[in-house]
Amino acid sequence: MNQPYRVVQYGLGPIGQSCLKTILNKPLGIELVGAIDIDPEKIGKDVSDLIDHPRPTGVVVSGDADAVLSATRPDVVVHTTSSFLASMYDQLIQCARHGAHVVSSTEELSWPYHRHPAISAELERVAAENGVSILGTGVNPGYAMDALALMATGVCNDVSSVIIHREVNAGLRRLPLQRKVGAGITPQEFDEKKATGQFGHIGLVESLYMVAAGLGWELDAMEEQLEPVISDTHHETDYLSVMKGQVAGIHHHAHGFVRDQEVLTLDLKMYVGAPNPRDAVRVVGDPPIDLEIKGGIFGDTATVAALVNGIPLVAQAQPGLRTVADVPLPRAFATTPG
Amino acid sequence: MNQPYRVVQYGLGPIGQSCLKTILNKPLGIELVGAIDIDPEKIGKDVSDLIDHPRPTGVVVSGDADAVLSATRPDVVVHTTSSFLASMYDQLIQCARHGAHVVSSTEELSWPYHRHPAISAELERVAAENGVSILGTGVNPGYAMDALALMATGVCNDVSSVIIHREVNAGLRRLPLQRKVGAGITPQEFDEKKATGQFGHIGLVESLYMVAAGLGWELDAMEEQLEPVISDTHHETDYLSVMKGQVAGIHHHAHGFVRDQEVLTLDLKMYVGAPNPRDAVRVVGDPPIDLEIKGGIFGDTATVAALVNGIPLVAQAQPGLRTVADVPLPRAFATTPG
Repeated sequence: MNQPYRVVQYGLGPIGQSCLKTILNKPLGIELVGAIDIDPEKIGKDVSDLIDHPRPTGVVVSGDADAVLSATRPDVVVHTTSSFLASMYDQLIQCARHGAHVVSSTEELSWPYHRHPAISAELERVAAENGVSILGTGVNPGYAMDALALMATGVCNDVSSVIIHREVNAGLRRLPLQRKVGAGITPQEFDEKKATGQFGHIGLVESLYMVAAGLGWELDAMEEQLEPVISDTHHETDYLSVMKGQVAGIHHHAHGFVRDQEVLTLDLKMYVGAPNPRDAVRVVGDPPIDLEIKGGIFGDTATVAALVNGIPLVAQAQPGLRTVADVPLPRAFATTPG
Repeated sequence: MNQPYRVVQYGLGPIGQSCLKTILNKPLGIELVGAIDIDPEKIGKDVSDLIDHPRPTGVVVSGDADAVLSATRPDVVVHTTSSFLASMYDQLIQCARHGAHVVSSTEELSWPYHRHPAISAELERVAAENGVSILGTGVNPGYAMDALALMATGVCNDVSSVIIHREVNAGLRRLPLQRKVGAGITPQEFDEKKATGQFGHIGLVESLYMVAAGLGWELDAMEEQLEPVISDTHHETDYLSVMKGQVAGIHHHAHGFVRDQEVLTLDLKMYVGAPNPRDAVRVVGDPPIDLEIKGGIFGDTATVAALVNGIPLVAQAQPGLRTVADVPLPRAFATTPG
């Protein structure tokens, strides 16, 4: 497939709008040909009206996905509508049936085989039938706590365990992220949200199983824990306040076991005031690897980058349902040196 | 292709012998079916006699590559005979004609397109014709100063430059590596060796062009420098002495330019007594990335790991001449958790 890739943006929430900006700002390599969203406030507007873009693009938001996909016949759809597969995997099917590759921010799609085996089989079948690839990615899941960890093991003859840490100072992130981690709510409110099962970081278990499968390890057991980080001081972010005793954010961790031994540890802290933001992978192996991204990867920007950088990866991948462990290693796409 | 991969080891120098050990120690996934070397001292011996292995393997070293490849019909050849393509690319052709994928430590093969365009075209043609893949890899080139750097840019929307450092304390490495960097020779001897054009680290320029191509950047100019690091004190390694004023090792660096701006910097220091061994990638971009592998990747072990972990990557790759930028991200293969 030759560049430029003809791209439709499907989903125009905060992440989708950031994807739009990135796509429109690329000097080459990508052409935006369509935009889809269900929000009546957005439908009918030129996408330049939704974002800080200097001039009309001629691409008007439509609520009719089939019509957009038929009319524009995109190479790739950048899909950013939901974290959960069950409620929207028909959107992925729809894109595939129109002959478009899909790169999606859907966290559950990053490693769908464990939580959604039937949907995974269906996505694989429809994608393969239509000669297209479907890929879930982002900074996390999709990079920081899975692909980067697998990459760290690539120079090891032996690996006995992998310990992955991500610490994010939520106080420096956008408001939706601060809300997502519960900053400023009470411990009781935290427990209520947690009970819904759709609170906390979506994708930690997906990352755990991706690393296990990438290493060829079959886990005998898995444990997942989500706890509030209670603030011991007062914090003011650009958007909200966190009082002492309120929730500052989450500590979400998952553990994989083989024969009662913990062989995979994924430890994620996202809270206002987190003192040591970083992404770290420690491989206990031969040789040992002690990798760190100092200050951590800034997630709001990086998720968008992972999606847009995923366009050539998914366009060139073998048809079917793919993961970041199947496609060539990520790298920046269509950047300007110097 | 199903596991176990049936593997021939082609080349039984120090790296090839370490590959043998790793392959024989894998609990699953690989079966050694043949071994090739031209050394009359090795031919006719069971490979267990060359390495510290507890029992005969039944695999006897042969000097007749064609006979071994015909008799064993391996899935993959692990090839470790030379750093340079021109003198041995017929060995790669030979493996491909026998229907075997090849993963090779040949440094010039890691990104052959720049230095050897005609050989690259020939390798691509023969590999594709025979439905096999040919891949050059190792810790460097193949990982530390190229694949890891590309991976670091994978979460960036924009990249203006990439600065890659690798510092290795050669005093902790095997004797051939200490010799390779000139530890213990005089500055005059260093200049004489340098004049041969086959001294220093082979592969730095290959890494530079791989990163440039991976990012889609066309370089307007490239500069490469090789300088001795002169010891300011006395060092004793397990193998040799370095006196004050003698050469401790190399400082080898390469620089890529676009419109007179330095956009890629690869800086490699390998010398006895290097104080801050590490692998580091700094991406000047959005977001910026500051990645470090503390203590650095231990190269002797890691090169062997990169080769053996390359077996499934090359076996599953699209046929043709491939690089680590084309195949799925590296990860440890056939390891034992816990």
